[in-house]
Amino acid sequence: MVEIRIAVDTDKPAVWQIIKAVIAGGDTYVYPPDSPEDEMTAYWFGREKNTYIAVDDGTIVGTFWIKANQPGLGSHVANAAYMVSPDAGGKGIGRQMAEFSLKEARRLGFSAMQFNFVVKSNAVAVKLWQSVGFEIIGEIPNAFDHSRDGLTNAYIMYRRL
Amino acid sequence: MVEIRIAVDTDKPAVWQIIKAVIAGGDTYVYPPDSPEDEMTAYWFGREKNTYIAVDDGTIVGTFWIKANQPGLGSHVANAAYMVSPDAGGKGIGRQMAEFSLKEARRLGFSAMQFNFVVKSNAVAVKLWQSVGFEIIGEIPNAFDHSRDGLTNAYIMYRRL
Repeated sequence: MVEIRIAVDTDKPAVWQIIKAVIAGGDTYVYPPDSPEDEMTAYWFGREKNTYIAVDDGTIVGTFWIKANQPGLGSHVANAAYMVSPDAGGKGIGRQMAEFSLKEARRLGFSAMQFNFVVKSNAVAVKLWQSVGFEIIGEIPNAFDHSRDGLTNAYIMYRRL
Repeated sequence: MVEIRIAVDTDKPAVWQIIKAVIAGGDTYVYPPDSPEDEMTAYWFGREKNTYIAVDDGTIVGTFWIKANQPGLGSHVANAAYMVSPDAGGKGIGRQMAEFSLKEARRLGFSAMQFNFVVKSNAVAVKLWQSVGFEIIGEIPNAFDHSRDGLTNAYIMYRRL
């Protein structure tokens, strides 16, 4: 049974293990695969973010954050990012975090959510976002330097809340 | 004769006057019209940015910056923002900064430039960007809380360098 809760400082080492494993592939996120722990943890737990974890039977198996995508006059649109431990793939944890985050973003007062950079070849993610109501509202040519495919496109995705 | 050069610390007060005047309208940028000077100056001169000014006969009439739009595997795409003093509008300073910035971004090693948030109703800006080769690659519904029009759309624009 997966439980989702707000991340606290003592979760950082476990969250870092997930980040490290996910960015190592160089195929879904822009963060350099060799990003240092302190930098990535500071980023993922940044003050402007609400950071969460998904816990499966005592083990942290996923993490995500929600923040405003723009300041001021654009701050009603949320942005978010999600990572699932590669050891816990295929168990629906991404979907559970996605659904939770939409409700949570609404609760935080956001009226829409936007992803600025969904790697086009990351079919699992694109399909997941579409299945929970996101639409592709733009495509950036050659936006992502994929570790195997080289320059590849990224989608901008959006849904109202 | 307008000259463009890299901004230095002593340019900050004059740059702030331009920022203050531009954001006061609440019709082109997301930054709250009442943003404090220290915050906005720190942002505009942030370490990750290359910040420039346009000087007309000794007076700073415009400013812009160039930075990577994403870290790591997305860092080959530039992002930029531009402001012209309302007192100096209609003199082609925006266009001069635009053209300079494209060359400069190329020189800095970027292979494309992306604007994440061009207010759709800002027709002067949209037209200028199109005239120097940018295309609209996406449109974000209700992205901008315009001071007079309320929720209005924003474009994502892009061009190769």
